[in-house]
Amino acid sequence: TGVGIDEALLAAAENLELFACAFAGTGHLPMDELDARGVTVTNAGGIHAPGIAEQAIGQMLTFARNLHEGVRRKQNREWRHFKARELTDSTVTVVGLGSIGRAVTQRLQGFDVDTIGVRYTPEKGGPTDEVIGFDEEPFHDALARTDYLVVACPLTDLTRGLIDADAIATLPPHAVVVNTARGPILDTDAVVTALQTEGLRGVALDVTDPEPLPEDHVLWTLENALITPHTGGHTPKHWDRLADILADNYEALDSGGDLENVVLAP
Amino acid sequence: TGVGIDEALLAAAENLELFACAFAGTGHLPMDELDARGVTVTNAGGIHAPGIAEQAIGQMLTFARNLHEGVRRKQNREWRHFKARELTDSTVTVVGLGSIGRAVTQRLQGFDVDTIGVRYTPEKGGPTDEVIGFDEEPFHDALARTDYLVVACPLTDLTRGLIDADAIATLPPHAVVVNTARGPILDTDAVVTALQTEGLRGVALDVTDPEPLPEDHVLWTLENALITPHTGGHTPKHWDRLADILADNYEALDSGGDLENVVLAP
Repeated sequence: TGVGIDEALLAAAENLELFACAFAGTGHLPMDELDARGVTVTNAGGIHAPGIAEQAIGQMLTFARNLHEGVRRKQNREWRHFKARELTDSTVTVVGLGSIGRAVTQRLQGFDVDTIGVRYTPEKGGPTDEVIGFDEEPFHDALARTDYLVVACPLTDLTRGLIDADAIATLPPHAVVVNTARGPILDTDAVVTALQTEGLRGVALDVTDPEPLPEDHVLWTLENALITPHTGGHTPKHWDRLADILADNYEALDSGGDLENVVLAP
Repeated sequence: TGVGIDEALLAAAENLELFACAFAGTGHLPMDELDARGVTVTNAGGIHAPGIAEQAIGQMLTFARNLHEGVRRKQNREWRHFKARELTDSTVTVVGLGSIGRAVTQRLQGFDVDTIGVRYTPEKGGPTDEVIGFDEEPFHDALARTDYLVVACPLTDLTRGLIDADAIATLPPHAVVVNTARGPILDTDAVVTALQTEGLRGVALDVTDPEPLPEDHVLWTLENALITPHTGGHTPKHWDRLADILADNYEALDSGGDLENVVLAP
């Protein structure tokens, strides 16, 4: 029956209490219909967070240690020193403190860095040293102090184009941007211009706009752009984690306990 | 006068109390002479540890997330998914719990991994979940459970060739070896054979044997070998940290306090 649930199937499912979606996103589901029928919907949010966070930190360390220059020299069989930096004492700003943003912050614990978290509701606090909202003044103040910017928020009307030419101009030119979220949160043209003019040290893009990135796109040609084909969430533990959520929720349903990952609670 | 101190200079330095060596190694100094004259020798041990540890973790994450495959596909302008793994739940064995081994362990804190430390004096304990010695039985027992092996010990008679064909055969075939220390701690021929026959998933070598790696060496050709030209310790903070040690020791000398980084205390 595929990944969704159509109306005929829904009408036939008279005793349906829970629809456990295997994705984080539920945009493909008839949420109003499910709501009207009193069906709870849970999602798979969070199961990709450890893998995505590891990838983001691997990409930051690649730029910190210039490991991509190491790859280039290896291909030339060239044993010759090059300059590297340190992540130590950097300021890492994490946009979005959901499961991915929290997983990134957790993994930065031992690195002696300062962290700034950006979230819709800064009054909730968070695991970062500072937590701010999306208002332009605090956000740009944070960008001006940022060495590594990790984008880990959902794509919404507010975040579409959030990292635009102005935001990039506010970042120090040695800053690195890592996008783990959705391509359109970055203004691709502004990113390309900054990469071409030393306006940014580098970007790591696991997601792009457009996506897939067309073969003739200039981003492929830039040495200071790391590109992976939306593989951040690929992990062999995906299905195990999904099964754990489902098994726990099945038990909770039976015992009347709290469900995990609820996105619709009629 | 160069990096050492010759006998004529030493004879002329009648009031010399402290020789502050700018390297970790002091093998180039006339230690017996300095000892006889009551000169304390300090070294620069530890100043490279943060950079080397960041590089080691960046290399582990490269293998965990297959970021080197990402680089390959980017060069081909190929947007096509590939499999990745997770560092989460892995066992990381760190050989040597000096400043580098401790810095690696500290930075693994947030990654949900199990750590095993190997040191000469396991009874001293350490920051890893387990601490063992170099005796063959516990060492091979640890290797059999190791997903990532980080070599961070000095080169001594005991550690020369420590990671030989037997040790590599004991590691699981999916294991990755990261050498941050000195080339001859690994048996290069055994490493090459394992990389060629799926005996090891990969190696990251910041140091090699021979070093520099000759242009016609087979290691350059292997996709599962990451090679950097002994850049682990290169960091812009090198001189600041060195100056901090010297300034603190100068003060301590004056005030009669404890010196840092003492390698010879006559």
